[in-house]
Parts: sequence; structure tokens; C-alpha cells
Amino acid sequence: MKNRQLRLKRNIRQGEPVSLDLFDLVETDIPEPNEGQFLVETKALGTSPAQRAYLMGEMSRFHPPLAIGELMRGRGVGPVIKSRHPDYKEGEIVACSTGWQDYSIQDGDQTKMPVKTLQKIHDPQEPLYLHLGTLGASAFAAYYGFLDVGRPKAGETVLVSSCAGGVGSMVAQIARLKGCRVIGIAGGPQKCAWIQDVVGVDAAIDYKNEDLYEKLAELVPNGIDVYFDNVGGETLDAALKNLALRGRIVVCGLISTEYIDPPVPGPRHYYNLIYKRARMEGFFVWDYFEDFPTAEADLVRWYKQGKLTPTERVFKGLESAPEALQSLFAGVDTGIKVIEL
Amino acid sequence: MKNRQLRLKRNIRQGEPVSLDLFDLVETDIPEPNEGQFLVETKALGTSPAQRAYLMGEMSRFHPPLAIGELMRGRGVGPVIKSRHPDYKEGEIVACSTGWQDYSIQDGDQTKMPVKTLQKIHDPQEPLYLHLGTLGASAFAAYYGFLDVGRPKAGETVLVSSCAGGVGSMVAQIARLKGCRVIGIAGGPQKCAWIQDVVGVDAAIDYKNEDLYEKLAELVPNGIDVYFDNVGGETLDAALKNLALRGRIVVCGLISTEYIDPPVPGPRHYYNLIYKRARMEGFFVWDYFEDFPTAEADLVRWYKQGKLTPTERVFKGLESAPEALQSLFAGVDTGIKVIEL
Repeated sequence: MKNRQLRLKRNIRQGEPVSLDLFDLVETDIPEPNEGQFLVETKALGTSPAQRAYLMGEMSRFHPPLAIGELMRGRGVGPVIKSRHPDYKEGEIVACSTGWQDYSIQDGDQTKMPVKTLQKIHDPQEPLYLHLGTLGASAFAAYYGFLDVGRPKAGETVLVSSCAGGVGSMVAQIARLKGCRVIGIAGGPQKCAWIQDVVGVDAAIDYKNEDLYEKLAELVPNGIDVYFDNVGGETLDAALKNLALRGRIVVCGLISTEYIDPPVPGPRHYYNLIYKRARMEGFFVWDYFEDFPTAEADLVRWYKQGKLTPTERVFKGLESAPEALQSLFAGVDTGIKVIEL
Repeated sequence: MKNRQLRLKRNIRQGEPVSLDLFDLVETDIPEPNEGQFLVETKALGTSPAQRAYLMGEMSRFHPPLAIGELMRGRGVGPVIKSRHPDYKEGEIVACSTGWQDYSIQDGDQTKMPVKTLQKIHDPQEPLYLHLGTLGASAFAAYYGFLDVGRPKAGETVLVSSCAGGVGSMVAQIARLKGCRVIGIAGGPQKCAWIQDVVGVDAAIDYKNEDLYEKLAELVPNGIDVYFDNVGGETLDAALKNLALRGRIVVCGLISTEYIDPPVPGPRHYYNLIYKRARMEGFFVWDYFEDFPTAEADLVRWYKQGKLTPTERVFKGLESAPEALQSLFAGVDTGIKVIEL
């Protein structure tokens, strides 16, 4: 048995799609855990927009770039198959920074880590990729961003951009669960049908074929109480313009403009923060790491009660990981993108 | 005895300074209070940037414009001189919407008012204009915006724009009182000397003669914990770029761009709200009306203890009110601008 790895061959060019072409597929021996470590078999990998930035080398503004020849970073899930740490027993399931490979060594002691990411799964659900998606990091971003930063109340109106995407579709589901009225924004009639039929939004706005300002005026005449922003740009501006009194904007991402250098102009309607006594706030999901068991328990409970619909789009095999990552940016697939190994 | 009033003669033109030329000086009889009302003699008038918008007619985006021939709106302070309301006795001092006139009728029942503004002064200080400035509405904006929205902690670094202005100079003083390190931004060496010598900031940045980004990098290498923004534009952008982790931006005003139509681009560095898990929030001082006695008590106590330096620039006579208002925009005078009648 060997350990297959995807290692960075060359940096991605501006505008270039993520593809297998950027990586070398390398086979190594399966590593042995030292004292305090354990070996995890990767059963599935998750995806995150930040991963594209790793590939950019010097171009990256905020994420530590990957060196040429280095293993691609990424989160995975799987069982402990050999352990020299008393708290992690063989057969237990963990989600952690596995990287894009079949087997990884994990350090049981997270105290030295700048960002803690090793999460023991207390009530594993099959397929395991759920713990990277509907019950994992994508959902945690939705859970903490929406609940802790957005502070929704039942009956409030929630707007979600990239609503057919991984985090957006989870925000919409949690918002619905909390008794909010949910308006989702997505691109194209198919995605809009999907967020209505599968995600269960109350109304969908097709930003590619409809005027966002007109639709917001029609759908939210009393203003948006919580806007969960995954995209920035014109959509953020339209939301700012249509905020309700004491509205809240959860700044989760700005995929529409993040990698444009120099930065594009910001939201011109931000002054509405004054007129609406409103709040705009960013967050980082890993800040909530210590509380992940709470989110996991809530999400698993909702899932078992049939209140959460899994939205995973499953890619198959390690070699499909670049394509899965690219699908976050291509705007074609719906839901949370995961790779099953 | 007559009641002199300044009534709007014509709307202000884009870019035109506020001047007496826009008003008619009219003399009327002194009005008689009805049951539930009382008569106030205006001893002083305050100033607020919003007042310029009243003069703009159709051009105004957010403030109800004044009709031609209508009395200019504005806040004043003075004694009750005739009363038919049991809670307001002759000789008591009130701050309220007097308008630009010598005498005004006030309604003791504020319950029907959309925005409550009638404030009884519990511990009047001389000169009375202090209750429009250092101990009044300008200070209340600083007090609630900085303390309730900014949530400063002792030892934190606070940046204040328009620091030589009415609200800014009060924010800086309150920040200093709360044990914060205060950096003030002002235009020109004289204003910078004034905020250092009179207001007591720890460091001043002369935005007209110094590079804001360079100075911030030098003065706040660990980032800004609270930025109190009175100006918007490039200054807001520079502050966003230099936020500390969990920094807070209090959006009080955007005088540099507010009346440009269509709105100018917003802050391009707003994405830093994500990277710094930061918050940007607006407020409206009149939302805190019910709590004004708390602010008044704190401010009067600090003032009596010598911890607050009054910064009023006093204009003399009703006819000087337009000039006083214009001085908010002219960028010459320091401190809080009030008119003594």
C-alpha cells in the first residue's frame, strides 16, 4: 500500500481554472506515527475558496502560499487507523487538515497550532463526507456566521447570496429552521429552481436574468434584517441599499472581487449603516473551534430529524480534487462540493 | 418684545456655502403656550451637519427638506419662561428643537413625536451653550457612538477623524478619559497642535500634509482597535486597512462624500472586516434619548472634575447662525460650534 499525494507543480496564473495540470501525483510510503501522533486514512476531502489562493504563490494577498513541490493543503475526514495518542483510538473518526493525500499523520496535541483544526466526530454519519459538508466546516461557517454574527430572530427576512453554493445553501436552511423568511440569490433558472425546491427558500432572485434592485424592492419592501454575504461587489451594495432598521450584514466572503488587484471600489451604499443603525461584521469560522461540538450536535440532530437536506455534490477519487475545487468558482454545480476517495 | 426668526428664503445650491443670504429675518409676536405647552427663550443654538441638508430642497437624500418660508430647524437651549405644563416650571432649563428664533413653543408631551428631542437639563452649567456642546448633543453623539458602539477597553488604540471638530474632539477626550491611546486626524498644523494641546491626543496626523497610510503604519503598528469615523472616503479606507483583530469602526458621519450624487465608491478595504473579524456599525444619537440623563450626568461630573475641556467656538447673535453652520464645512474653526443669542 502506498500513499498518493497531489503536490503543487506550478503556480496558477491569473484567471486560470484549477486543474490537475497544476499538480504532480506522487506516491510515497505510508508514514508511521510517532509518540503523540496518529495515522488517519482520508475517506473524503472538502473544498474551500481559500484553497485557490494557496496556488497563487506571490500573488496571494492573505493566505500563506504553497511552495512548489509541497503537498496541497485541504481538510479531510476519515478513521484513525494507527494511534500513539491516548485520546485518539483506532476506528474513531476525525476531520482535520489531511492535505490532498490518502494517509496523513496528525498531532494529537493542538495547543501549539496557530489555528486548531483537528475535530473528533462524536456521532459519525455515513457517508463520512457529510462531516465536511452538511455536518462539517461548510455548515459551521453558516452556523456561526449566521447565528452568532447575524443574530436572526424568527420572522425576520434573511437574504443569502451564492445561495446555491455550499455555505449559502446551509445558511438558507438554518435560516428557514429558525423561522426566518429566506430570499436566496443565485445565477440562472436551474439554480434558482434548486434553491426553491431543495434548499427551500421562500423566494429566489436570478441575478443573471433579473434586476437585483427591482427584485429586492418587490420582495423585501420592509428591508433586509440579515444579509449573509458570500460575494461582495454589486450584490453587497444592493443589500446595503435595502437594509432594514438595525439590519446586519455578515461578511463571509467576497468571491466576486477578492482576487482582483488592486482592490476594486467598495460598497458605495455603506452610509446606510448610519441611516439604518446597521452593522456589518466579518468572522472566521476557526475562531469558533472550541465550540464546534455544539454546532456538530445541533446539525446532526437537525439532520436526523429530517430538517436539513444534504446538498453535497460528490466528486470521485483524489484526481478529481482540482476539478472539485474549480467547481466553487465555475458557478455550475450546486451545493457543497466534496471529494470521496 | 418681538420674536426674531430666520426663515428659508431659497434653497442652497450645490457647493454653495451656508450664509445669511439664504434666509429672511422675520419678526413675529411672541407666541402663547396652550394647555400642555410652554414657552422657551432661546439662549443658544447648536449646529449639526444635517442642518445643511435641510436647505437643499429636492437635492436632499435623507433629511426632510425645509419648505421655502419655513423656520430653520435647529436645537437650542434656554429657560422655560411661561408654562402650562406641570412638568416644566418657569426657570427650568431645557434643550430642545427651538428652531432659529428667540422664542419657541414646546409641547410637554413627547409621546407623539417621531423623534424625541426635548431634554430637561438637570444640573445646568453656565454658559448654557455647554448643554448643546461639551455637555449636550455633540457630546452625546461622541458618548454613545464611542462607548456603546465602539466598546473601547482601557489600553486600546483609538483613531478619530475630524478630531478638531465638535464630535471628534469629544470622542478623543472621552477616549483619553477611558484610558485609551488616542490618535487624532486633523487638517493642518494649527488644528494638529490644538488637538494635542487642548484635546490631549497622544499623537496627531495632519492629513493635509502627511501620508495617512505611512503615519498609521508608524503610529499604530498593531492596528486600530476603535476607529470613530466622521468623514468616510479615503480616511475610512486607510483605517479599514489598518484595523486590529476584532477592530470596530463607528460610522458617525461621512462628511467628505455624503452630498456627492451619485454616491462615490465605498471603502475598497472593507474585506478586512473578514480578515480582522471586525465590525463596522452606524448609530443615531437620538435613539439613545431615554438614556440622555445618564450621559448628561457623566459628562457634567467629568466637567466639574476638570477632566473635560470645553471646546466651544462661540458665534454671537441669531444672524451669525448661518456662518456658524457653514463653519462645520469650512474646515477652519476647531471644536463645537454654538451660537449665543
